[in-house]
Amino acid sequence: MSSDKPTDRMLPDGSMASGDSVPHPLDPLSVAETNLARDAILNARGSTVVVHFRSISLQEPPKKDLSQFLALEHSGELTPRTPRPERLAKVNYDTVRGDKQHEYMESWVDVVEGREVTKKLIDKAHQASLTMYGSPFIQYVLREADQKGYRQEFRAFTDACLASPLFQKTIAEFDLPEGFVVTIDPWPYGSDEEVVPRYTQGLCFARDTRSGNEDSNHYPYPLPIIPVMDTYSGEIVRIEKLSTGGKEDGLTPGTHQKDILTHCSPGEYIPELLSLPLRSDIKPLNVTQPEGPSFQVNQNLIEWQKWRFRVGFNPREGATLHDIRYDGRSVLYRLSLSEMTVPYGDPRPPFHRKQAFDFGDAGAGRAANNLALGCDCLGVVKYFDAVLTDADGKANVSRNVVCLHEQDNGILWKHTNYRTERAVVTRLRELVVQFIITLANYEYIFAYKFDQAGGITIETRATGIVSVVNIDPNKTSHWGNVVSPGALAQNHQHLFCVRIDPAVDGHQNTIVTEESLPMPISNDLNPFGSGYEVRQTAIKKSQFFDASPTTNLTVKMTNPSKLNPISGRPVSYKFTPSASQLMLAHPDSIMARRAQFAEHHVWVTKYRDRELWAGGEFTNQSKAEVDGVSDAAARNEDVENEDVVVWSVFGLTHNPRVEDWPVMPVEIHQIHLRPADFFTSNPALDVPGAKNSASRLAPGEELCCESGNVQHAPATHLQGSGPDLDPKSKL
Amino acid sequence: MSSDKPTDRMLPDGSMASGDSVPHPLDPLSVAETNLARDAILNARGSTVVVHFRSISLQEPPKKDLSQFLALEHSGELTPRTPRPERLAKVNYDTVRGDKQHEYMESWVDVVEGREVTKKLIDKAHQASLTMYGSPFIQYVLREADQKGYRQEFRAFTDACLASPLFQKTIAEFDLPEGFVVTIDPWPYGSDEEVVPRYTQGLCFARDTRSGNEDSNHYPYPLPIIPVMDTYSGEIVRIEKLSTGGKEDGLTPGTHQKDILTHCSPGEYIPELLSLPLRSDIKPLNVTQPEGPSFQVNQNLIEWQKWRFRVGFNPREGATLHDIRYDGRSVLYRLSLSEMTVPYGDPRPPFHRKQAFDFGDAGAGRAANNLALGCDCLGVVKYFDAVLTDADGKANVSRNVVCLHEQDNGILWKHTNYRTERAVVTRLRELVVQFIITLANYEYIFAYKFDQAGGITIETRATGIVSVVNIDPNKTSHWGNVVSPGALAQNHQHLFCVRIDPAVDGHQNTIVTEESLPMPISNDLNPFGSGYEVRQTAIKKSQFFDASPTTNLTVKMTNPSKLNPISGRPVSYKFTPSASQLMLAHPDSIMARRAQFAEHHVWVTKYRDRELWAGGEFTNQSKAEVDGVSDAAARNEDVENEDVVVWSVFGLTHNPRVEDWPVMPVEIHQIHLRPADFFTSNPALDVPGAKNSASRLAPGEELCCESGNVQHAPATHLQGSGPDLDPKSKL
Repeated sequence: MSSDKPTDRMLPDGSMASGDSVPHPLDPLSVAETNLARDAILNARGSTVVVHFRSISLQEPPKKDLSQFLALEHSGELTPRTPRPERLAKVNYDTVRGDKQHEYMESWVDVVEGREVTKKLIDKAHQASLTMYGSPFIQYVLREADQKGYRQEFRAFTDACLASPLFQKTIAEFDLPEGFVVTIDPWPYGSDEEVVPRYTQGLCFARDTRSGNEDSNHYPYPLPIIPVMDTYSGEIVRIEKLSTGGKEDGLTPGTHQKDILTHCSPGEYIPELLSLPLRSDIKPLNVTQPEGPSFQVNQNLIEWQKWRFRVGFNPREGATLHDIRYDGRSVLYRLSLSEMTVPYGDPRPPFHRKQAFDFGDAGAGRAANNLALGCDCLGVVKYFDAVLTDADGKANVSRNVVCLHEQDNGILWKHTNYRTERAVVTRLRELVVQFIITLANYEYIFAYKFDQAGGITIETRATGIVSVVNIDPNKTSHWGNVVSPGALAQNHQHLFCVRIDPAVDGHQNTIVTEESLPMPISNDLNPFGSGYEVRQTAIKKSQFFDASPTTNLTVKMTNPSKLNPISGRPVSYKFTPSASQLMLAHPDSIMARRAQFAEHHVWVTKYRDRELWAGGEFTNQSKAEVDGVSDAAARNEDVENEDVVVWSVFGLTHNPRVEDWPVMPVEIHQIHLRPADFFTSNPALDVPGAKNSASRLAPGEELCCESGNVQHAPATHLQGSGPDLDPKSKL
Repeated sequence: MSSDKPTDRMLPDGSMASGDSVPHPLDPLSVAETNLARDAILNARGSTVVVHFRSISLQEPPKKDLSQFLALEHSGELTPRTPRPERLAKVNYDTVRGDKQHEYMESWVDVVEGREVTKKLIDKAHQASLTMYGSPFIQYVLREADQKGYRQEFRAFTDACLASPLFQKTIAEFDLPEGFVVTIDPWPYGSDEEVVPRYTQGLCFARDTRSGNEDSNHYPYPLPIIPVMDTYSGEIVRIEKLSTGGKEDGLTPGTHQKDILTHCSPGEYIPELLSLPLRSDIKPLNVTQPEGPSFQVNQNLIEWQKWRFRVGFNPREGATLHDIRYDGRSVLYRLSLSEMTVPYGDPRPPFHRKQAFDFGDAGAGRAANNLALGCDCLGVVKYFDAVLTDADGKANVSRNVVCLHEQDNGILWKHTNYRTERAVVTRLRELVVQFIITLANYEYIFAYKFDQAGGITIETRATGIVSVVNIDPNKTSHWGNVVSPGALAQNHQHLFCVRIDPAVDGHQNTIVTEESLPMPISNDLNPFGSGYEVRQTAIKKSQFFDASPTTNLTVKMTNPSKLNPISGRPVSYKFTPSASQLMLAHPDSIMARRAQFAEHHVWVTKYRDRELWAGGEFTNQSKAEVDGVSDAAARNEDVENEDVVVWSVFGLTHNPRVEDWPVMPVEIHQIHLRPADFFTSNPALDVPGAKNSASRLAPGEELCCESGNVQHAPATHLQGSGPDLDPKSKL
């Protein structure tokens, strides 16, 4: 997606024939563009302030401009003189004056002209997301900074704890075993009713260093304290003591033992520290593609099996998909993971502040793993890099943050003609765009999967290490499960929101719910009671609604202006919203108020540029969801036959099992977008049903059948049901 | 599973060392045993009656006997003198006397001694399932039989139609185009209020023979008639005229046009008849296992990755799994697909009789496809054959009805230590036991998948050709979708029931529901409203309950006598029942009454031998569910800490899309059984995280990372958060 070539739009006529040197409007910023934006901001702010960059990324063009461009692109009418959408960088940064006064700013920079075009001071009610490149103020406080040192907020927090006499005293109150050191996971502060400055909190653990292996797992040794830092002053403002109690203790703190770790046990997951041997009986299973992959990639443009789309990447959302088309027809304008929140269900303070917004607080793009061949995917893999920025604003290429590969997912369709025993069977090939994020203890694997039947699956896998707190020996809790001695894995939820911006054969779409409903018995319509009604309801105003499995509620994104020539129904793409549990925190709680998006399964809003984030732009220490999807829906706008956006919310209530320790097997969730009367027949009808010649019989087996997909096995149980009747012939 | 070696239990002492020559009590019947059972019945019935066999299969031993045997097997105490459960064949057959009086019988035959041990005359209120080897009576009627001719009921039905002047006259009323012949799909008669003899009905189509290809698809040309035959007399008793109307016609029949097919179009799916070229841009994706599979198979015993189980096969259920154990510990006693029903939602008579019970009416084992290497599975495949019987009772080996293979399903678990950038990632290998059934137009793919984290997934895929009826030109319907000109695909449901017989560390288990519930805000327990309650409810009496996604209802199959040493909770396996839509037909309708099992998502019953079928033993033409799971639950038996059975019901409301034509992409449903506090940590912790060396970069890519699962990409965004604090050292 990134290109290190400097962009140059001042082209002589005719040099655009290949188009290579001018970025597509959906190309993420190049290294050169990123650095140009940085320089523009540094110039514009001048030398009286220090600028600390939080992010520089593509400001996607307004839909009006981009749609025009895309229409020309697809109709082949693009010329060197076609006006292009303004190519903008969105730059988020702090300005710091000598008196340590800080302001959080957002500017847009025209990266062709290298000129700042807008500048906005962010209201102090909002906090920037945590950047791992963050706060410069710590530098002053700790007096460790060198002239160009820009340390992460997270690193700064750890340093501040270590330097804090209060923290040192608190740690000294524990009698940590020999060889154990303190390890801190900085977390967003969460929120409560109190208005506070920018704060950072930390979950503290001890780590056994005696193995000499720095990957020895610290999570089995939770310490019952949470230090809180004033992020900008760098001061540890307090250290909260956590309850270590069990069922019998209610909100009282339990017994904070001096020997806080003696009842804890190791929980290693790295192979060289495991106490049990690795399995030796799992034999290689290789995916090979001797003729290479079936996809073509050109910069960020991906083409595969009639699909064509562009992949973007930004610090907040990670990989995004754009201009998704099938066989030349538009399906979606944009598809993204919009937000997720992870509220913990342990009511004992201060755990009400244990609520992460992993996109708004941290940023999925910033947290993206650098993927490794053969570990994260099998087969032939194409990787994409991303340009991220350090606190000095300089572009930094993060390698392999997104991968692309094909995989087999079993049978796609099959039919056996029982009269002739002729079986035709095809296999379901998928194209997967995947990225993986790490947020301290936890991992999410996100995948967009395209198939040959016109379907798109959005998959989330939750894995990593569950968050634990210390619990007294021999106690159990209402609020979680003891997954390791002394380690209580707290019950929690993962609530995701996927943003779907449909463009089903065009931008004017109507969202329709389809429900299947029982009917009364009636002589004139349903004499035997066997019938059921399929009821369509067009969504006319922006609103929310919930999954309804009892009525088989399906959401159809339709184009009412285009009817399927076979069925006479509007062309559409559909999905069935998962009836997963929504936010369990009390509706009046700050946790719920901060994540209004998580109160309903489906939101339908009228499109607005830059309205991308379900929980609002500023989630860090938010008191409520501001300008999130709930506000967008509340505008009560007309959404029938309009440019409409659908937001799908789903989640996982995770009451941990012992089996989730010390690292949990994936919990998988999928949403399936499928065409519904979009095509005039099964779009995968033309997938060849050829036999895979690489498959083998297990040792000692004999093949009974001839090759090819015609089966000649005896199959007497499927013998034909008799001859056909020729009405013209004499019987 | 089958062995052609004759069994001999009269062994000299010591010859059982290998145990090979004596079948395991769970081995399906061999060819020799099957033929022995046949001969025993022929001898017992004598020469005064003709015996027409419907099925001969293993009568599984009573649990009491089998459990004792299995306990000895697993403790290594099996000796040649260990008493074995009686080895029985269950033989179902009709007896026919010269006067055509028929009786439907079930006998059990001791296949060691070749002796009938029980005999039961089935009440005439019940109908045997349809056998494709079935009725002998047709032979007499049609006077076509040779002395040993045993034709299928289905074949007989077709022959009867062709021979029927009434049918011929009805067909003659249509002006079928030149080159079209009539093709009939025999169906079970379904049921209504009327009591009738054994009937067969047929859906009629025309087939275009002009291509000369006998696999030319007939379903696009539906004829609006249903002939009904008295199965035993062979007489076509009536021909029902079907409505071809649309929304405007209500229950009135529409316009039965003479030129009934002129508005229909071809709908081919076999490659050589497609009107569009096959895709040429899908490159091979091969699964190779150079060191062979990771499983071991010995007769019907399968061992893989700490799993050990036996696979059975019978004409009704297809593949069944038995004595499922992980690392020497019992998990399930038996796992099977119990029943499914497919009611159609078109209220126009006689479509209320369009309701199939694919297990009870037809038999998943009888309908099983013979699988082909590389078409139905990739990789190294082990196939299992089955012994089925023809109407003469002779054993017939049906090849490759079940397949076994491994597959990769993405990441199993991953964690990246953001301090060191060390990532450990493992891949999710699955072992799949699969079979595929064809029921006239439709296919189901059933798979039991085992994974390395102790999980078992039960997957169903629906594919094949949706059932269509004729609709007048330019009309649309409330009751389905026009998927091809003149072809209305009727709305319908697929309602499945999986029977789970748990043996979680023993047979005495308790079913517990776990729900996650909101809590009021209260100062003493939930001051910030962030908490939620996890409520466990033990099921004490046999009963049903429904899925409850709003409370995240999870079903735990627990062993209350065995507590997890870490968490202190009972060891268990759990699943989340799918909140899929249940039976839509009116509760008073005969469709609903016949399938009471489909009225609730979960049933908990006390174990009884031979209580395997959710919809009752006799579903064909049933008036109600007799001795099905609803009756078992109604016994109101104690099920707490008892031998208990759990029945999971789920379904698919299928309102067809045009994309489902002419053969539909798979609709996938999965149930996941997962350990919950069964183990003392993630059971997949010992899965090696080794890099797959067969994976390749896409062309033109450069590998940025070193090999191995330690990632050395720059990844500045995941830089460490700072040093650890050593409490012993001076800061």
